[in-house]
Amino acid sequence: MQLIDVGDLSLNPTMPSKQSALYSAIQEKILSGQWPTKAKLPSSRLLAQELMVSRNTVTAVYEQLKAEGYIESRRGAGFFIQLVNPESYLLTQPLDAANTAAQASQTKQTVHAKLTKTTHTLNVREKNRPFATGVPDLVAFPYRKWTRALQSHADRLAIAGQNDIQGSHNLRAALSEYLSISRSVDAPSHRIITTLGAQQALYIAMSAVLERGDEVMMENPGYVQMRKVLNRCDATLSYLPFSIENGVDISPLETFEGKAIYLTPSNQYPMGTSIDTNRRKQCIDWAVRKQRWVIEDDYDSEFQFANRPYPSLQGLAAKFYGAEANVIYIGTFSKTLLPAIRVGYMVVPESLVEKCLNIKDAIGGDTPIHVEEALAEFIRSGDYLRHIRRMRNLYQGKQQFFVEQLREKFGDHVEVLSQDAGLHVTFRWKSGPDAITVKHALAEQGITIRTLDYYCDPKAMNTMEEWIHRALVAGFGNSSREDIVTGINALAECMKA
Amino acid sequence: MQLIDVGDLSLNPTMPSKQSALYSAIQEKILSGQWPTKAKLPSSRLLAQELMVSRNTVTAVYEQLKAEGYIESRRGAGFFIQLVNPESYLLTQPLDAANTAAQASQTKQTVHAKLTKTTHTLNVREKNRPFATGVPDLVAFPYRKWTRALQSHADRLAIAGQNDIQGSHNLRAALSEYLSISRSVDAPSHRIITTLGAQQALYIAMSAVLERGDEVMMENPGYVQMRKVLNRCDATLSYLPFSIENGVDISPLETFEGKAIYLTPSNQYPMGTSIDTNRRKQCIDWAVRKQRWVIEDDYDSEFQFANRPYPSLQGLAAKFYGAEANVIYIGTFSKTLLPAIRVGYMVVPESLVEKCLNIKDAIGGDTPIHVEEALAEFIRSGDYLRHIRRMRNLYQGKQQFFVEQLREKFGDHVEVLSQDAGLHVTFRWKSGPDAITVKHALAEQGITIRTLDYYCDPKAMNTMEEWIHRALVAGFGNSSREDIVTGINALAECMKA
Repeated sequence: MQLIDVGDLSLNPTMPSKQSALYSAIQEKILSGQWPTKAKLPSSRLLAQELMVSRNTVTAVYEQLKAEGYIESRRGAGFFIQLVNPESYLLTQPLDAANTAAQASQTKQTVHAKLTKTTHTLNVREKNRPFATGVPDLVAFPYRKWTRALQSHADRLAIAGQNDIQGSHNLRAALSEYLSISRSVDAPSHRIITTLGAQQALYIAMSAVLERGDEVMMENPGYVQMRKVLNRCDATLSYLPFSIENGVDISPLETFEGKAIYLTPSNQYPMGTSIDTNRRKQCIDWAVRKQRWVIEDDYDSEFQFANRPYPSLQGLAAKFYGAEANVIYIGTFSKTLLPAIRVGYMVVPESLVEKCLNIKDAIGGDTPIHVEEALAEFIRSGDYLRHIRRMRNLYQGKQQFFVEQLREKFGDHVEVLSQDAGLHVTFRWKSGPDAITVKHALAEQGITIRTLDYYCDPKAMNTMEEWIHRALVAGFGNSSREDIVTGINALAECMKA
Repeated sequence: MQLIDVGDLSLNPTMPSKQSALYSAIQEKILSGQWPTKAKLPSSRLLAQELMVSRNTVTAVYEQLKAEGYIESRRGAGFFIQLVNPESYLLTQPLDAANTAAQASQTKQTVHAKLTKTTHTLNVREKNRPFATGVPDLVAFPYRKWTRALQSHADRLAIAGQNDIQGSHNLRAALSEYLSISRSVDAPSHRIITTLGAQQALYIAMSAVLERGDEVMMENPGYVQMRKVLNRCDATLSYLPFSIENGVDISPLETFEGKAIYLTPSNQYPMGTSIDTNRRKQCIDWAVRKQRWVIEDDYDSEFQFANRPYPSLQGLAAKFYGAEANVIYIGTFSKTLLPAIRVGYMVVPESLVEKCLNIKDAIGGDTPIHVEEALAEFIRSGDYLRHIRRMRNLYQGKQQFFVEQLREKFGDHVEVLSQDAGLHVTFRWKSGPDAITVKHALAEQGITIRTLDYYCDPKAMNTMEEWIHRALVAGFGNSSREDIVTGINALAECMKA
């Protein structure tokens, strides 16, 4: 067993905190291979002494590195490097995806028949009701500040004519800084393209990298709106399976010869798990080595309550392969600010910028620039970060309250599956009514809840485990504490009936 | 020769003016076939007496019906119904399109080589400079009113969440009324979809009606942005030729088995001619009889200076075939208000609404609703119509001034091709430098002008008549009178050199 010497490990004094400096320093050592796999890390006490930082700082960083899969702890023995060396792990995990699927239990036909009814479109009122997913707190938004910012750009003659198809330069410059600091994205402004929400970015990304008929993989359960994009692109779709024990299973990539994978690595939608660094690295290698693509949808990673959020997969790829790594990063202001703002963004390698702009030009052109300029001002002034911080606390409180209420009402009968993050809670129960029945009963009481099977590949429902049909996805972003109490009481009534 | 009796012709007293009432009444008689083709209309004096309206009213209506191709005048003999009866004209005009193309003169290779360089993208400054096309007067816009309207909707919690994919209900209701009154569009609000500029509408329309590989026809010269859409849709593109003498030649439709045609019937882009009612009707019949489609782009028809504008082709189709006629109507606020507003709209048959919404959902979703709500308020309050009226006068003055300046500087050497309408003047000259040379010379002096060949099918340049390379398209919307004087002086210098 190799012991790691602290050696030349040093903290960059320009980083915002000692904790982030230590995290970066150790991450560099691991990623560069200087600290090899399986080697033992210095104890937290020793490292704290050597670097003259508090032991709490070291412990927090070790916990984060562990949560992200860089290191592992062995009981009583300390921490060990877990990240497999880039050159050595590919094709080393012969997991048979077909077998896994075959072992999956079969679905009752009655449930499946009901399911087909659930894909109808929600109306506007239903989309924003308590427990509806993807809606942030609409009351806590700083409307006055925002309106003032909008107003100061709506009457500018200089931006009233035809504008840059790539989006406001000011917004791209502000985003460049924000994404680099907050999400470790490698994002110079000339490689950022603003879009009509994240949805347009998803469409542009897929259209840019796919030829008709190309194969694509996405997570199952996964983001339903992505299936619509792939359908429009005439892509052939297959799935990365999910299990409660291991999260997203990326082993099918070993034999996948398709063109792209679509991932929500920092907060899997809707299961609310993270893909750890080791698996992220495998996805990146899969893409780069054969000129294929990872589309990273980082839709609500600003809201992590238990751990510091993972840095972006895109940033990790850039560390290994530089700016031309085959990753497209996609984000949105819909969750951090308001859905109605309708601005998203994508960061692409330079070689893809022009192609993406041509697509954006053909399908709609630039988006209203006064909104983009107001966003730029919002970010630059610090209002954006302040708002995110305030919302993080608010949502953390709501999430905890939601989970507590579930526990109080249902005890062990209900299991929360999603991590402490994001704007929704995903949970399942052991026995009782199926989710569709519950959903319809709640809808009658003015509560919009999604069944988990809504997010699953409709063609492969009969290969899914049975519990999929006893699981719900509840948004809490736009739900007050009373909404949560009312909703969970209503849920309890349904479960009893 | 059949003489028409005034008969039961009567004026609808609820119409805004006697002139519009008379126009509608005669149009109905012609379209219904009650007044047959080739029959002679009552004299203007007789009709004025019978209906107790002024003779000027009758003369104006006859002139408009003549301009639109419903009737023709024969010198000294009066007016005659010209619209061919719906049942009798199809396949009666065996014009050989291939022959016409073969007769066209050949293009100098040097000009063609230069042309390929001109398709580069303009930067933002260049896009809005004097003579740039498609830019309305940015100074004359009522920014204060507009900003106030925007502001009053930007802070509304009720529309801050997820919104209707079809667009603001208020805007669709306001548009329904406006389009019906101003453009005779058959447009109930549930068949209107708001879009990200007209461009998104073009993409949605084409995606909704085309299968991959389907054939489409558009005008040549024509709207370049449409070629980008068709390229994305994997459509096979062919062209309706244009001639100075006859405008857009629709005879190729007789043998065209493709799926759709894209037209700018009220102000052909960029030639600035109109397609008369007879040819409109042929296009409609072509589409309806075999379940094919006409996409009508009505991009700046609000600005007609010489005649009353044509009613929309879509409205004509509805008169004959009802609400399900195979026409998609597309319009935009980019020309009437500002490009930066980025709102367009489409009116589709009910059977196509859901398909279009699915496409809109996949490629980007709804557009910022506070802008749409502000537009609704702008239309409802009458501010929109007042602005259009004011702009119509302003643009009419600019257009006249532009043409006068051309005449003053060049006399007969330069010929204006476009009608008195829209936001640009298209003109050609008899001999001298080619348009690309002029364009580059003007660009150096801060003037952005488009060559006519920019709008032509690049693959068929060698079949075009030679004069195409001595013609320019100059926008005057955002040019002041001084800009126009400066620009035309610069043009004169180039022509001399």
